[in-house]
Amino acid sequence: MRIAVLLYPEFTALDAVGPYEVLSRIPGAEVVFTAARRGPVRTDMSSLALTADAALDEVDSADVLLVPGGPGTEAQLGDPAVLEWVRAVDATTTWTTSVCSGSLLLGAAGLLKGRRATSHWACLDQLPRFGAEPTGTERVVLDGKYATAAGVSAGIDLALSLTGRLAGDATAEAIQLVIEYDPQPPYSAGSIATASPELVAELRSNRLLLG
Amino acid sequence: MRIAVLLYPEFTALDAVGPYEVLSRIPGAEVVFTAARRGPVRTDMSSLALTADAALDEVDSADVLLVPGGPGTEAQLGDPAVLEWVRAVDATTTWTTSVCSGSLLLGAAGLLKGRRATSHWACLDQLPRFGAEPTGTERVVLDGKYATAAGVSAGIDLALSLTGRLAGDATAEAIQLVIEYDPQPPYSAGSIATASPELVAELRSNRLLLG
Repeated sequence: MRIAVLLYPEFTALDAVGPYEVLSRIPGAEVVFTAARRGPVRTDMSSLALTADAALDEVDSADVLLVPGGPGTEAQLGDPAVLEWVRAVDATTTWTTSVCSGSLLLGAAGLLKGRRATSHWACLDQLPRFGAEPTGTERVVLDGKYATAAGVSAGIDLALSLTGRLAGDATAEAIQLVIEYDPQPPYSAGSIATASPELVAELRSNRLLLG
Repeated sequence: MRIAVLLYPEFTALDAVGPYEVLSRIPGAEVVFTAARRGPVRTDMSSLALTADAALDEVDSADVLLVPGGPGTEAQLGDPAVLEWVRAVDATTTWTTSVCSGSLLLGAAGLLKGRRATSHWACLDQLPRFGAEPTGTERVVLDGKYATAAGVSAGIDLALSLTGRLAGDATAEAIQLVIEYDPQPPYSAGSIATASPELVAELRSNRLLLG
């Protein structure tokens, strides 16, 4: 089982690494980090780079495609080579998935027309421009073979759900225990439903804080 | 504020990237990924490499030191250069922290003597050999300036707790909302307290699965 993860400049690291940490542990899974060119790709916070081991033209199929989000997504929406690659690989997948604003990239590739989908809470209002129907309240949304997750950390939940479907509940539970995923956030501001309205408004007006 | 993250071969990616995703967003924070040599460092699952932007001898101080864990920890426990670097940087920190088996490295450096600490559940029994007192039931343990987290994903919780102490609750809550950390695991096998005893026993007897 091949899992292709798309990297591009200014993606958000955890969007990619959260799901990778789960999916790479499925017995028989092979993960390939893929970008326009081989080599290091800088994340949005600039102090970290992940290595792309393959260039786009070296990966033409995958069982699972994962598209992370981040401030760099916007620049990719207008890149025909990236959109064409996403479409071509999607034609071969069992699951096509995204985390955070990665769903906008799936949308720009024309893959979410008429589908329910989610994204980072601050990007949900952009989904309709691609013909997708934002759900807003669900952390992981499955519609056909398309699985989209909410912002950044939601990719871990998406990957565990996907693992259950790809390899069975027992494997998903084993991986959950291996990564000791028993989250205990010390604050309860993790969604726009639980954070204070003042904090949500402040972040909406200050896009810089969103990374 | 400088945050130094130690990388070494076969570390677990999420141990480092979870906390980085939180701590790098603290206003004024600068994260530096540091390893024996500059360049890509392969994780335990081999399909991913993170870039170290600095060599150990280029970083001699930090406000926060973060040591991730992983199957590669064991090899580091006997490396005098790494242990000496951890001790030297620790002498300059406000917080010295670890995720997963990273606490064994802090222990081997002599930093956890007489301190309460935690680790990946499968490594807890190794803490006493370094004079540390394993807590077992806590996901994040603070003892003085030493903050240790349980396995892999626990680094996110640790980093949010630390952010509250370093930059205040409001900043920690803002970062939690930015990374939409409102976890909803689809299974409840994330700790040895909630997973089935059969699964815990199976993973204990099959160390390969632990990565």
